[in-house]
Amino acid sequence: MRETIRSTAWEVAARVDAADFSGAQQYLLALHPADQADVLGEFDDAAREALIAGFSPEQLAGLLEHLTAQERTAVARLIAVDALAAALDASPPETAADVLHNLAPEESFAVLGSMHETAAVEPLLAHSDESAGGIMTPNVVALRPEMTAAGAIDYMRTTQLPEGDAYYLYVLDEASRLLGVLNLRQLLTAAPDRPLHELMDINVITTTPETDQEEVLRTLQHYGLRAVPVVDGSGHLVGVTTADELLDVAQQEATEDMFRMVGLDEEEPFMGPVVPSVRRRLPWLTLNIITVFIAAATISVFEDTLERAAALAIFLPVVAGLGGNAGTQTLTLVVRAMALGEYDRRQWREVLPREIAIAVLNGAALGLLVAVLAGVWQDNLYLGIVIGVAMLGNLLIAGIAGVLVPTSLRLFRSDPALGSSIVVTAVTDVMGFFFFLGMAALLISQID
Amino acid sequence: MRETIRSTAWEVAARVDAADFSGAQQYLLALHPADQADVLGEFDDAAREALIAGFSPEQLAGLLEHLTAQERTAVARLIAVDALAAALDASPPETAADVLHNLAPEESFAVLGSMHETAAVEPLLAHSDESAGGIMTPNVVALRPEMTAAGAIDYMRTTQLPEGDAYYLYVLDEASRLLGVLNLRQLLTAAPDRPLHELMDINVITTTPETDQEEVLRTLQHYGLRAVPVVDGSGHLVGVTTADELLDVAQQEATEDMFRMVGLDEEEPFMGPVVPSVRRRLPWLTLNIITVFIAAATISVFEDTLERAAALAIFLPVVAGLGGNAGTQTLTLVVRAMALGEYDRRQWREVLPREIAIAVLNGAALGLLVAVLAGVWQDNLYLGIVIGVAMLGNLLIAGIAGVLVPTSLRLFRSDPALGSSIVVTAVTDVMGFFFFLGMAALLISQID
Repeated sequence: MRETIRSTAWEVAARVDAADFSGAQQYLLALHPADQADVLGEFDDAAREALIAGFSPEQLAGLLEHLTAQERTAVARLIAVDALAAALDASPPETAADVLHNLAPEESFAVLGSMHETAAVEPLLAHSDESAGGIMTPNVVALRPEMTAAGAIDYMRTTQLPEGDAYYLYVLDEASRLLGVLNLRQLLTAAPDRPLHELMDINVITTTPETDQEEVLRTLQHYGLRAVPVVDGSGHLVGVTTADELLDVAQQEATEDMFRMVGLDEEEPFMGPVVPSVRRRLPWLTLNIITVFIAAATISVFEDTLERAAALAIFLPVVAGLGGNAGTQTLTLVVRAMALGEYDRRQWREVLPREIAIAVLNGAALGLLVAVLAGVWQDNLYLGIVIGVAMLGNLLIAGIAGVLVPTSLRLFRSDPALGSSIVVTAVTDVMGFFFFLGMAALLISQID
Repeated sequence: MRETIRSTAWEVAARVDAADFSGAQQYLLALHPADQADVLGEFDDAAREALIAGFSPEQLAGLLEHLTAQERTAVARLIAVDALAAALDASPPETAADVLHNLAPEESFAVLGSMHETAAVEPLLAHSDESAGGIMTPNVVALRPEMTAAGAIDYMRTTQLPEGDAYYLYVLDEASRLLGVLNLRQLLTAAPDRPLHELMDINVITTTPETDQEEVLRTLQHYGLRAVPVVDGSGHLVGVTTADELLDVAQQEATEDMFRMVGLDEEEPFMGPVVPSVRRRLPWLTLNIITVFIAAATISVFEDTLERAAALAIFLPVVAGLGGNAGTQTLTLVVRAMALGEYDRRQWREVLPREIAIAVLNGAALGLLVAVLAGVWQDNLYLGIVIGVAMLGNLLIAGIAGVLVPTSLRLFRSDPALGSSIVVTAVTDVMGFFFFLGMAALLISQID
């Protein structure tokens, strides 16, 4: 929060403490709506409700537009039905639809019933708020093919142009079917008497209202577009999705890999009911039970060794912990590179030697350090050597598993991130215990 | 890759195998440049070089613009200096600057020396390619304050308008200092004779060329803008950064949390020299040595118990592994919610009880399963009970640590993701071993 906004927040807080809400409001309204939203975030619901009580519909609309998705719903709940309806009438249709989507159904219907400007909002409500139809703006500059360039400019000048993006201009037939697209630059620089059907590009890259927002994002990024028009099954233009609306989608999508790596369902809400979250997490934790019992079985092979030298058990988390974290580092690097399109699965031939080289250098340094620490602690040179060598071996395995696990998942057309952290950790656990206890068993007469 | 593009890729591949490169080229050039880039990605450097040998400068420019950052540099290296210079002359200045930024300095100077259109490119080269100055387009529609609305439209019609975004129009004084901004909609719907200085908004949200690209993204998202003008220290407008250019930045930034959680430097390149990567990862792995030795010390407290019942060592990875993964799940959920602005640190009072409830339910289910598996395997009821209860306790600790570790890091104004996975795993290791071995010590007469 910048200094000027912070000082306003203090002024507002001082007046809220003194219950001088109209005084607080004056400070608040002097800010940009995006900054008002930040300041409001500092107060509890009761104070928020009092602060926005005197807002005009336009001021409420500005505020709602700049709140985060979660706060938008929270603030909308604080506003009376009539006031909220008036605010949504003054909002862009996609913002109004988003608010209505996230209210309880009966509240949503009550607000919609009190609104006047529902024609543009209602079609948006019919779509999931994670589809093109749910995030598009229906406000599009629509022109006719027989218009001339000069005529189109005059039309745009005399018509109430919508608030939406006016970079791409869409040419529609009399039934609102999309015929072509041209950009403003083409229109302005064309000979004034040329008809649009000669100027427009008829190879338009479009999407459908049902298309998932991530797919829309990929299309827009792939073709380097600013906006993608949304066309229904009959070829009618129903709206347009723009790059600025897809920024949040880009962030959400990029963070989904984090979820999949640790076996979290990417749709798991941050808050919300407990039982569905339990159901979503249990399958992965159950898979995890299988992997930890495999690790346990590896140790049980060396039960005789452990009976002769119980001190070996102390170092099991040293071998497993460092191997697991090093493996997760390599895994994270590979999964992110795949997500950002920097890694092609054929590149594993270059990536693997690089990660092995890093593992050898890190393993030599850490192995030496651990060998000295463990050898001095237990006053046993052989134990130090065994754990140091096991460490080097396990870091090597960690580097290899970190590259090969996501690469193989991708090769089999599966999600390269899905549960991969659990698999890599299982590999480093098993191999780490095997190296460590195996060598200890060979040198048991020196260790016990 | 879509079906039509895949079939083209096959046709191209068949002709490349037959060394019929001009035939292959014809298939390739029928595609959108973005799809050409995809198909080229399937071939090795020698085939790529032959395939693009006959491309015109404009065709090369289209291809370069749609390649990913990494492939763009790889392909640029395959093109002769003169051909590359001609292609960059035909490219948007920000694409040309990006290519030149990533070539070796001597190659870069050679290409720049052969280019004609360097006026717009050279200023961009002076900035880091992760700053506003490095990602902005210098192509801006610049108007004068005394122009009328109608005059401005005529000016735009008769001037060679740049390729850039034409949604926001910037009003500059005679020294190119930014005076105000208006959008195209305002211009088109204004009375034709009104001067721009009456129409423009003088409260322009700007950024400087040195500003980091992530900061630019935050400004654009915070204020819900389509573009942010870039203004130098003297108030001159030098370019504009647009939402579509920031989509990649949004994805990169969102994935940085993944890196920080596992103790990876967010700047670590995916490929590149080994030694700097070793240096970046070693500090975190060294911190990790401290945490695993704390876990080892916890076990060593119970060395007597382990000497009486070596079989207990078998179950150490079961307790630690499940606790670690459950803790990482909660941690990932919280870190992502923070990154997406869904989590305010004061919300921990709501999040913590929710995660505790999930942990109790998951812990009861997994504890029971593990108790049965371990009890039957070792034929010892008490061992089963001890490990089951330890599991429940450790999942509770995992849920609590998963919420409180990132929340505390944020409270102390630190990065909530930084190394948090290593810290949470350390907490679940130590507490898991303590619960399990502590209870086993109390019941040792039933277990050994």
